Amino acid sequence: MAEQRTPHDLPDVSGLTVAVLGGTGDQGRGLARRFALAGHSVVIGSRSAERAAAAAAELGADLGVAGADNAEAARRGDIVIVAVPWDGHRALLESLRAELAGKIVVDCVNPLGFDAKGPYALPVEEGSAAQQAEAVLPDSRVVAAFHHVSAVVLLDPEVDEVDLDVLVLGDDREATDIVRALAARIGGVRGVYGGRLRNAHQVEAFTANLIAVNRRYKAHAGLRITDV
Amino acid sequence: MAEQRTPHDLPDVSGLTVAVLGGTGDQGRGLARRFALAGHSVVIGSRSAERAAAAAAELGADLGVAGADNAEAARRGDIVIVAVPWDGHRALLESLRAELAGKIVVDCVNPLGFDAKGPYALPVEEGSAAQQAEAVLPDSRVVAAFHHVSAVVLLDPEVDEVDLDVLVLGDDREATDIVRALAARIGGVRGVYGGRLRNAHQVEAFTANLIAVNRRYKAHAGLRITDV
Repeated sequence: MAEQRTPHDLPDVSGLTVAVLGGTGDQGRGLARRFALAGHSVVIGSRSAERAAAAAAELGADLGVAGADNAEAARRGDIVIVAVPWDGHRALLESLRAELAGKIVVDCVNPLGFDAKGPYALPVEEGSAAQQAEAVLPDSRVVAAFHHVSAVVLLDPEVDEVDLDVLVLGDDREATDIVRALAARIGGVRGVYGGRLRNAHQVEAFTANLIAVNRRYKAHAGLRITDV
Repeated sequence: MAEQRTPHDLPDVSGLTVAVLGGTGDQGRGLARRFALAGHSVVIGSRSAERAAAAAAELGADLGVAGADNAEAARRGDIVIVAVPWDGHRALLESLRAELAGKIVVDCVNPLGFDAKGPYALPVEEGSAAQQAEAVLPDSRVVAAFHHVSAVVLLDPEVDEVDLDVLVLGDDREATDIVRALAARIGGVRGVYGGRLRNAHQVEAFTANLIAVNRRYKAHAGLRITDV
């Protein structure tokens, strides 16, 4: 008898290679580290293959993270995480349209500005970074996730369990389930479906609120979704 | 020796009267019920004093919630919660400018639309409902909070502890501290500072994501902020 499929069921993603574009930044290195710890083959991408290799090596030889230029990383990843600064977001994705065709592309970019009053959400023509990715990459399966992970926590060797739910947004049920399963590969983390891609803006922008929380409480704040 | 003031310290708000404008709706009645349970004097406001009195009576005679028209409720409240539908938001506040002058006005309105694909955030000229309130009420102390409370949970007599952090946003530190303390009067709830009012849009809009979560997981989802 087949088991009933529930919203909590997750596919097996353990064999997938994860590429992290812009993976030399703190968030990218933190995610690369956690997925490598979980046993994934991981490739850090950067504009410079040398800098990517250096960032990968810095994570520790035991993790076996590879480095490559962004195009090569995109080719090698089964799942490709986009962790570039917002400034270069559109141009990078436009340059990798062919490499990213048919793949699950996970956008975790937060378009934020900072001034004397702190962080704030930048307006995005397409509505959100994730929707911009979808517009630029019509042949990819774009999912939004990993916006609220703390790079400091991900990179901290003292932290085995990360106290966080990763909200996963998208219109492709299979793709969001795969990314939810990927999120759950990080110790302590759950991947929780968070709505369609058109509701990604507020999840990206909410990072400004978490930064405000961090400043007030001297914390590395994250979210948990209750009753799920 | 005076104790060091920390971001977790809260003022005593137990003697404050709470008014809930648009308090005949589910969210308004739910909040009215919880603040009355906590011992506050509570006034439900509505366009019709009769409907307000009926909604108040429906909560149970033992709670002693009063009903009045919105103007009278605004006059009686030390803290005035705005829980009206988004449609009538601006007009109601414009009509109560005098009554709300000098008071803490807590906006919990979520400007959302619904179509065949579910909920989505509506654009707001001022940026958010809370910023619209601030623009319309220059003489009030506008705070944004209580966006994600589940009316079903607040009204459920079986639920003593509500598993939720209420994000409290605003530019007036004393006012946000008072509203954080008010949130904490609901069993199980914490009031957590969530940033300046200009970052209210994403908190309001995030309600669309929670509705999507509720539909997928058949839940009454809320938020907890970790590491705070």
